[in-house]
Amino acid sequence: MTRKLGEFEIIKTYFAPLSQSEKGSFNLTDDAAVIDIPDGMSMVVTTDTLVEGVHFLSDDLPENIAKKLLRVSLSDLAAMGSVPAFYNLSIATKIGTTSDWFRAFAGGLLADQIQFGITLIGGDTVATSGPLTLSLTAMGFVAKGKAISRGGAKLGDDIWVSGLIGDAALGLRAATGKLSSISEENKKYLISRYTKPAPQTLLGPKLSNHVNSAIDISDGLVGDLDHICETSKLGADIQITDIPLSRAANILVTEKPDYIDLILSGGDDFELLFTADKSFRAVAKSLTEMLDVNLTKIGVMVCRRSIEIFDENGNKYVIKNNGYTHF
Amino acid sequence: MTRKLGEFEIIKTYFAPLSQSEKGSFNLTDDAAVIDIPDGMSMVVTTDTLVEGVHFLSDDLPENIAKKLLRVSLSDLAAMGSVPAFYNLSIATKIGTTSDWFRAFAGGLLADQIQFGITLIGGDTVATSGPLTLSLTAMGFVAKGKAISRGGAKLGDDIWVSGLIGDAALGLRAATGKLSSISEENKKYLISRYTKPAPQTLLGPKLSNHVNSAIDISDGLVGDLDHICETSKLGADIQITDIPLSRAANILVTEKPDYIDLILSGGDDFELLFTADKSFRAVAKSLTEMLDVNLTKIGVMVCRRSIEIFDENGNKYVIKNNGYTHF
Repeated sequence: MTRKLGEFEIIKTYFAPLSQSEKGSFNLTDDAAVIDIPDGMSMVVTTDTLVEGVHFLSDDLPENIAKKLLRVSLSDLAAMGSVPAFYNLSIATKIGTTSDWFRAFAGGLLADQIQFGITLIGGDTVATSGPLTLSLTAMGFVAKGKAISRGGAKLGDDIWVSGLIGDAALGLRAATGKLSSISEENKKYLISRYTKPAPQTLLGPKLSNHVNSAIDISDGLVGDLDHICETSKLGADIQITDIPLSRAANILVTEKPDYIDLILSGGDDFELLFTADKSFRAVAKSLTEMLDVNLTKIGVMVCRRSIEIFDENGNKYVIKNNGYTHF
Repeated sequence: MTRKLGEFEIIKTYFAPLSQSEKGSFNLTDDAAVIDIPDGMSMVVTTDTLVEGVHFLSDDLPENIAKKLLRVSLSDLAAMGSVPAFYNLSIATKIGTTSDWFRAFAGGLLADQIQFGITLIGGDTVATSGPLTLSLTAMGFVAKGKAISRGGAKLGDDIWVSGLIGDAALGLRAATGKLSSISEENKKYLISRYTKPAPQTLLGPKLSNHVNSAIDISDGLVGDLDHICETSKLGADIQITDIPLSRAANILVTEKPDYIDLILSGGDDFELLFTADKSFRAVAKSLTEMLDVNLTKIGVMVCRRSIEIFDENGNKYVIKNNGYTHF
């Protein structure tokens, strides 16, 4: 009985304020939300679920859990070339979760709502005897016919990535004490890249007129490139030396070259991986200036149905750790 | 590592076939789905989450769990006056959930997709150490400006319900062995009303031009009427003798009058409760004929801010079991 009362209180106190900028949310008091899609736009819809102990740690800060949850979905919206608009949130929490926890969690959501321009419009709050389980369905807009899919890569397309690759996988290692010989500053940088991914929500929509395929890097650079290859029925050649690394990642790889496997196959970077014809090279320069984002060409799409990785000497490189089918 | 492979296999084998009728689902191979909304329509979005041990029993049939999950959300779409279109599905399952389970679960979804005209377009499949946790976000269409909200009830509106009230609450009691003296036939009927609610997906959209407010009965007749009263800033008078009961419910109430409290405050009927002005009485007759659905007037909206319940002698009736604030 207390639980049900708790549910209404939680919604009213912590979540309803997040829905106020969209009247179609009915302030979270109705059976469903009612939203309009601007003329000429399609709606992009994506769902991601995070489970305590699987996708985040029990003692992670609630505001960081909230941000990770939203950003994973924002990254999916960006990969389709869409602009964030709305989200529904499902929370299954243990009975007795404190109001402090909910306050901090909602605070994390609010900060990201402001930063990324997205608004809560509905959801469900239930009790569970198991781990905290969060599911978020994000909705965005893209001009009709302009959504970027994984399956559109063309033979001869340049392969591009945004930002820096591999920091998140190294950050997870750093967070769990598995990186030796690293400065406190670099450790802190890498961990923050893991706990607070920065989805490319401004870049994604700018790509929709210019690129042939895109995906966000959640399974790892090579694994996600493989998704593009599989759905586009093509292969890829990539150059290790072209992969953009942070200063921290560079230091680690120089000391221990095996870390390159983690950079190639580790996940959770939430950067964009996309393919485009050569005319994009000029566009990339202006996008880099306009958005202050790194865009780096790392390879080319080929007609053979596999991915080949080349080292600094032009030799084929084989990932030792499970190969690129890292799952 | 097996888990991740499992995830892709589960999606490809059991869920991708459910998405084939909507090309914007990309056969569940992309970051997100891309859908179009028909001209002149708004989109209605609702999320419901069901947890094993809280909202269904561990040994419930997978196909029944699937149907309950979909129908709870279909009922919300109906309450807004919208026609079902798409859904995203999040599943957090224990590692080792069998392919038989997934096959049966997907079979339940497919049967309901055909019956109710809704298509899977995306979602997420993850592992959990806890109870099976299912979250579904359903999307429907309603003509712009025609969505029915809880907050639109007018003073003097008739209060209506669809179908028969209280069967689900009695069915839950029957399923857990808490109903004595009931025939096997009636027991079976009541349990099926609890496990397989029949959302009013045809009725809901037909109401959107004619009624002032609506809600689906999930928290219980009086509890949900209270939601309408609260958001509409009105009160209600209802007549116990006007509440439509099944033959099974009638037998039970005749034998043990206290069961009326369960009928008034028990949840999960997933019928529609709505208010409309007197001109709706004629419409109700034709809807009843057209859709073969019971529509029953059970009361009237009043300006006092509370709900009063009257018995067959015109006396005020007070629910013994916690009052109507049953949560």
